[in-house]
Amino acid sequence: MSATAETVPASAPWEIREATAEDWPAIWEILEPVIRAGETFTWDPDTTEVQARDKWFKTAPGQTFVAVGTGGSDGMVLGTGELHPNQGGGGSHVANAGYMVRAGYGGRGVARALCAYSLQAARDAGFRAMQFNAVVESNVRAVAAWQGMGFEILGTIPEAFNHPRLGYVGLHVMYRRL
Amino acid sequence: MSATAETVPASAPWEIREATAEDWPAIWEILEPVIRAGETFTWDPDTTEVQARDKWFKTAPGQTFVAVGTGGSDGMVLGTGELHPNQGGGGSHVANAGYMVRAGYGGRGVARALCAYSLQAARDAGFRAMQFNAVVESNVRAVAAWQGMGFEILGTIPEAFNHPRLGYVGLHVMYRRL
Repeated sequence: MSATAETVPASAPWEIREATAEDWPAIWEILEPVIRAGETFTWDPDTTEVQARDKWFKTAPGQTFVAVGTGGSDGMVLGTGELHPNQGGGGSHVANAGYMVRAGYGGRGVARALCAYSLQAARDAGFRAMQFNAVVESNVRAVAAWQGMGFEILGTIPEAFNHPRLGYVGLHVMYRRL
Repeated sequence: MSATAETVPASAPWEIREATAEDWPAIWEILEPVIRAGETFTWDPDTTEVQARDKWFKTAPGQTFVAVGTGGSDGMVLGTGELHPNQGGGGSHVANAGYMVRAGYGGRGVARALCAYSLQAARDAGFRAMQFNAVVESNVRAVAAWQGMGFEILGTIPEAFNHPRLGYVGLHVMYRRL
């Protein structure tokens, strides 16, 4: 673990904890615009709230978590993430994770903090590595953020994502050991 | 499409067609030993028959198919495959597929024929490319077969598969356009 790669400022005005069923309405406020936009996640833009809830809430060894504001945005859910085995059977020691940040709260380090939390949670659950299967190439801020968190691009599936504005762009497979 | 890459001998003693519910007992005879062995698929080796059936049978634009013997093995299901979108939303134009061959019937071209069928079926369903997410590196016959069918290795996730005899081996991400 690289201290520089995963350290989040001590003054970060949020805390990250496991999500509960009561967090769902706030989580859905975050997920819905991201899903509907269809620019960064390979989810059907017409995914219903019930489908999204089933898909986002994970069971052990995975988990779902939220970043909750502790400063001026006291109690507001600023972002959410989930962690789960990327494959079954012989592939179940590699984790996969996803993160979404509340609209208007990007660029403050919330996604990085969610990622750092998931890396430690994955280690604690016994995973040996983390893999992202489909990082949209045009989502350059995310790609740079994950590289800054120690992930490397292992390969890029050409034209694997049909971006609503940009057309076909690649999907990166990203990876790091834990 | 390369004729050399996808042509199956005209004398191949099987035909490939969409699977029906009546094929399930024969399909399960094929799947169960492959799943239990845990050497080539990232499925939980303890997957139940009901879980396997839910997982193997795909709906449109995907499909599930069988190779049925027409010669000496008349009517025997020699292999089976399935085809489905690899991702949702903006990623749904890339297909994923899997194939399993009946124990004792390897090395006869059944897997290649199933792959060729899936490539054409994927084209017919409007997919633009096919991707395999997790080809076990030690399954060298499969890797060579898919390369022979026009797939390339886009990346390899290191030590991403815990092989019951070989320990940690890589998982290849393989890809071809349609």
